[in-house]
Amino acid sequence: MKHKIITISREFGSGGRYIGELVAKRLDIPCYDKALIDKVAKETGLVTDFVAEYSEHAPTGGRLAYALAGRGASGESLEDYIFRIQSKVIRELAAQGPCVIIGRSADYVLKDVDVQLLNVFVYGDAEAKKERIAQLNLSPAVELDKLMKDTDKKRSVNYNYYTGQTWGDPLNYDVMLNSSSLGAVKCAEIIAQMY
Amino acid sequence: MKHKIITISREFGSGGRYIGELVAKRLDIPCYDKALIDKVAKETGLVTDFVAEYSEHAPTGGRLAYALAGRGASGESLEDYIFRIQSKVIRELAAQGPCVIIGRSADYVLKDVDVQLLNVFVYGDAEAKKERIAQLNLSPAVELDKLMKDTDKKRSVNYNYYTGQTWGDPLNYDVMLNSSSLGAVKCAEIIAQMY
Repeated sequence: MKHKIITISREFGSGGRYIGELVAKRLDIPCYDKALIDKVAKETGLVTDFVAEYSEHAPTGGRLAYALAGRGASGESLEDYIFRIQSKVIRELAAQGPCVIIGRSADYVLKDVDVQLLNVFVYGDAEAKKERIAQLNLSPAVELDKLMKDTDKKRSVNYNYYTGQTWGDPLNYDVMLNSSSLGAVKCAEIIAQMY
Repeated sequence: MKHKIITISREFGSGGRYIGELVAKRLDIPCYDKALIDKVAKETGLVTDFVAEYSEHAPTGGRLAYALAGRGASGESLEDYIFRIQSKVIRELAAQGPCVIIGRSADYVLKDVDVQLLNVFVYGDAEAKKERIAQLNLSPAVELDKLMKDTDKKRSVNYNYYTGQTWGDPLNYDVMLNSSSLGAVKCAEIIAQMY
């Protein structure tokens, strides 16, 4: 009997991470996000913050970025290396049992793994997302628009680059939830019930 | 206390109409689709099939289409007239009590009406939709791709024209469900639970 894994992709500010945590708590299963990055960091020997920052950047193709990113002994770029290790970790975690995985292209990484996937995308309207980001003091208010756009752009570029799919395309997901209209608690309830 | 209305927008072949019927049955509330068109037809004095066909066509802007569509005594086009009457009927039905409304841009038409809206979009992958259409014998198999594309195009053009919004844009909906991966029964369960 295959066990179930919930992956949550989300727009920045939509509360997708928080919703994932609520779901995990409700179902009493682990939720992997920063914890996963930490694990990746340990395996790669890179410091946590460094990996956290880089894991949401796709190769830009620019020479400077390439030079800055550097290459490992194998000749693969730092980003490719991180994605490879990260994907390995995600598959190992998924094999251990039911869990929630936030971001990290996990819907794609686990596509051919022998688990039952519930792929969720959480989105919201710009005003509600800005309000949430402002409340969490994630950034000075004046830069919220840019921060939101840039973060989603990074996620999208990274996802599209490594998966060959399109970030946010409904066909990648089983369900897409509007957290602005539904609220985080309701979103978590729906996901838990679907599970 | 405002009552609740479920609107279901859907890709052709996704089973959105069937899902809506399942939801309505489960919640013991009416489901309006063809019944709604019939009511429109009565009010406009146009025959049912004629309205059913035209209500999914937006004005194309082409002279021939315009000439064929004709204009009422007021000078408005047939399509505009149908949309106006249809919207009036939708608002009247919605005022009567909880119900499910399939298509007809109801999510937009009821936007400023004093009810609690649950706006759902049902989609699916091309293969699953084609299989469903073929099973229902809606069209000869060879033309399925074209039929699917044309029907969704019509819905999209019509919706976008009258609402100024974009058909299928997640922000128009509270939840988007992938009927190919979830199945119709599961989709109906989720909607009923959300309700």
